[in-house]
Amino acid sequence: MSRIVVAADFGGTFLRAALVTAEGSVLGRRDVRTPTSEVPAEKTIAGVIGLLASVAQGSPDRPVAACIGTAGIVDSHAGKVIVAAHIPGFRNLQLADPVSQKLGMPVYVENDASASALGEAKYGAGRGASSLLHVSLGTGIGGGLVIEGKLYRGAKGLAGEVGHMIIDPAGPRCACGSRGCLESMASGAALAERARKLIESGRAPMLQEIVGYREPTSNDLFTAAQRGDKLSEAEIRHAGHVLGLALGSLINILNPEVITLSGGLLAIGEMLLDPMRKAMYSLAYGPAGGTIVRLSELGDNGGLLGAAAVAFSRAAEERH
Amino acid sequence: MSRIVVAADFGGTFLRAALVTAEGSVLGRRDVRTPTSEVPAEKTIAGVIGLLASVAQGSPDRPVAACIGTAGIVDSHAGKVIVAAHIPGFRNLQLADPVSQKLGMPVYVENDASASALGEAKYGAGRGASSLLHVSLGTGIGGGLVIEGKLYRGAKGLAGEVGHMIIDPAGPRCACGSRGCLESMASGAALAERARKLIESGRAPMLQEIVGYREPTSNDLFTAAQRGDKLSEAEIRHAGHVLGLALGSLINILNPEVITLSGGLLAIGEMLLDPMRKAMYSLAYGPAGGTIVRLSELGDNGGLLGAAAVAFSRAAEERH
Repeated sequence: MSRIVVAADFGGTFLRAALVTAEGSVLGRRDVRTPTSEVPAEKTIAGVIGLLASVAQGSPDRPVAACIGTAGIVDSHAGKVIVAAHIPGFRNLQLADPVSQKLGMPVYVENDASASALGEAKYGAGRGASSLLHVSLGTGIGGGLVIEGKLYRGAKGLAGEVGHMIIDPAGPRCACGSRGCLESMASGAALAERARKLIESGRAPMLQEIVGYREPTSNDLFTAAQRGDKLSEAEIRHAGHVLGLALGSLINILNPEVITLSGGLLAIGEMLLDPMRKAMYSLAYGPAGGTIVRLSELGDNGGLLGAAAVAFSRAAEERH
Repeated sequence: MSRIVVAADFGGTFLRAALVTAEGSVLGRRDVRTPTSEVPAEKTIAGVIGLLASVAQGSPDRPVAACIGTAGIVDSHAGKVIVAAHIPGFRNLQLADPVSQKLGMPVYVENDASASALGEAKYGAGRGASSLLHVSLGTGIGGGLVIEGKLYRGAKGLAGEVGHMIIDPAGPRCACGSRGCLESMASGAALAERARKLIESGRAPMLQEIVGYREPTSNDLFTAAQRGDKLSEAEIRHAGHVLGLALGSLINILNPEVITLSGGLLAIGEMLLDPMRKAMYSLAYGPAGGTIVRLSELGDNGGLLGAAAVAFSRAAEERH
C-alpha cells in the first residue's frame, strides 16, 4: 500500500499543495495565489486540478488519495463546498468528483479547521490526546473536534463552528447575521474593524499614521500597540479576554484533553495570550478539569498536514 | 446474564431508586426525601445503601450492577462525588465503594445530566441518534453528550457543563464565580432570583401577592405571568431567549443530530420555548445543520433510566 497522499490547503491568500507521507513529512510543496474575484469557478477548479496533478507527478510512490481543506461550510460526505466566501464561485459546488476524475484517485473535501484538528491530533501538539479541540485564529475563527482519533463532524458536518458561539448578545453584528459571535469580537477581521473604528474616531493618530490610506489590518493595530498606543493595546487585550471566555466555555462544554490553537493572530503573542489565559482559567469549571492549551507548532504546513490526515483516515475507512 | 440493574437518582428534593430492565421498564420504584442539612454524610450513605438494598431485594433476577446519578461534579472513574452542593457532606466523597461492598455488586456514580443523556439516547427522545446533546433545565442547568452510543466525558469527566458557558459577560454573578453563565441567566434558580428582584423593586404587586412572605420560585414568576403580569412574562421570555442563544451556540459547536431537553422549567411551556426557538434558529449556523430539538418524554423516570443506561453500559465495558 502506498504511504503518501496529495494534500491541498485552499486559503484566502494561498492555495497550497504538497505530498505528505504517513509520518507527516511534507514533500514538493507548491503555493499559488488564490484567484481573485474575476475568475469563474470552472477556471479555479481547473487550476486546482493542474496544481494537484503536478504535485502528484512528483511523487516517488503512487498517492493513495487526495484531500482539499478549505475554509467555509463543506459537505465532506458529498465532497461539496456549500459556501466558501473567500473563493470566487465556490457555492454549492461539487469539488471532489471533477478533481478525482482527472487525478485518478479518491479526492476528499474537508473544512480546513476540522482537517487541522485531525492534523494536530496525528502530527502536531495534540498527539496522543484522547480528545482534542482545535481553534484556528485567523481572518475568521474556525474549529474542529477529534475524539478518540476520529474527526467528530456532527449531524451534517457542521460541528466545530466555534467562531459562531455567542459571547456577548450586545456585541457587534457578525457576518453570519447574529450579534456578538466570537468571530465578530476576536478574529483578525474583528480587530481590523476595531482599527477602522479607532481611526474614524480620531483618537488614534499613531494608528492612522501606520495605516495611511489603506484598509487597516489586525497587524496595524498590533504595530500601533507595540509603539505605545494604549487604545490599540486595549482593543487587542479585549479580544484576548473574549477569546478566553470562549475557550473557558468550551472547556466547560467539552473538557477536551488538549486544545490546540493556530493561526495568524497568534503572532501577536502575549498581548493577546495573557488576557486570554486569565479569562479562560477564571471561567473554566473545575481547575482540575485538566484541559491543556497548546499553540500549534506546524506553522503554515498545518493546513496541509490536516488535509493529509483526513486523506489517510478516509482512505483507511473506505478500505474496510 | 442478568438483564436488570439498580438505578438511583439523587436530586435536590428526592432520592429515587428502582429496578430497571435492559428494555427500560422501571420496576419497584421508591422515592424518599433528600436529607436536610443536619444529616452527616455517613448517615446519608447508610440511607442510600438501605434504599438500594431494599429495591434490589425485590428483583426477580440478581441485578448485574447499580448506578447512582447525582447533580454536581463527579469523578465517574473513581466513583467519587467531588462536589454536590445539594447533598449535605457530599464533598470529595468515595460513594461507589461502600455501597458496592454492602450490595455485593459493581456500583457506578455518574453526573445526573450525563446519565440522562445516555438514558435519552437509549430509551428516550434520542433513540437511534449518532450524536446527542442533553440539556437539563431545573434549579441548575446541566448537560451531557453521547457520541455513537457512548457517553463522552472529556479529559476528567467534566464535559457537558453547559450551564457554565458564558452568554453575557455583563450578566449576573453565577454561583461558580463567573458572570453571565447560562445557569445564572436561565435556570430555575436564576428565575427565582429575578422574581426576588422584581418584588424588591415594588413594580410587581401581583407577583408579591402570590409569593407572600416565602422565598419566591420560578413557578411563582410563571404564575404571575399567566395572570397577566407583563414584567414577570418579560423575565421568562428573556430567559427563553438566552436559552436559545446557548442552544444555537451549542448547535454551531457540536451540530448534534438531536438535542433533548428535560427538567422542571419545561413545565412553563411556550412562554419559555417560543423565544428559545426563535433565538436558536436565528443563531444556528446553516439551517441545514439538521439538529433536531426534542423534549424528553421520560418524565421523572428520566434520571433513573439515565442511571440504568450507565449501569448497563459500564457493566458491559467491564466484561470486555
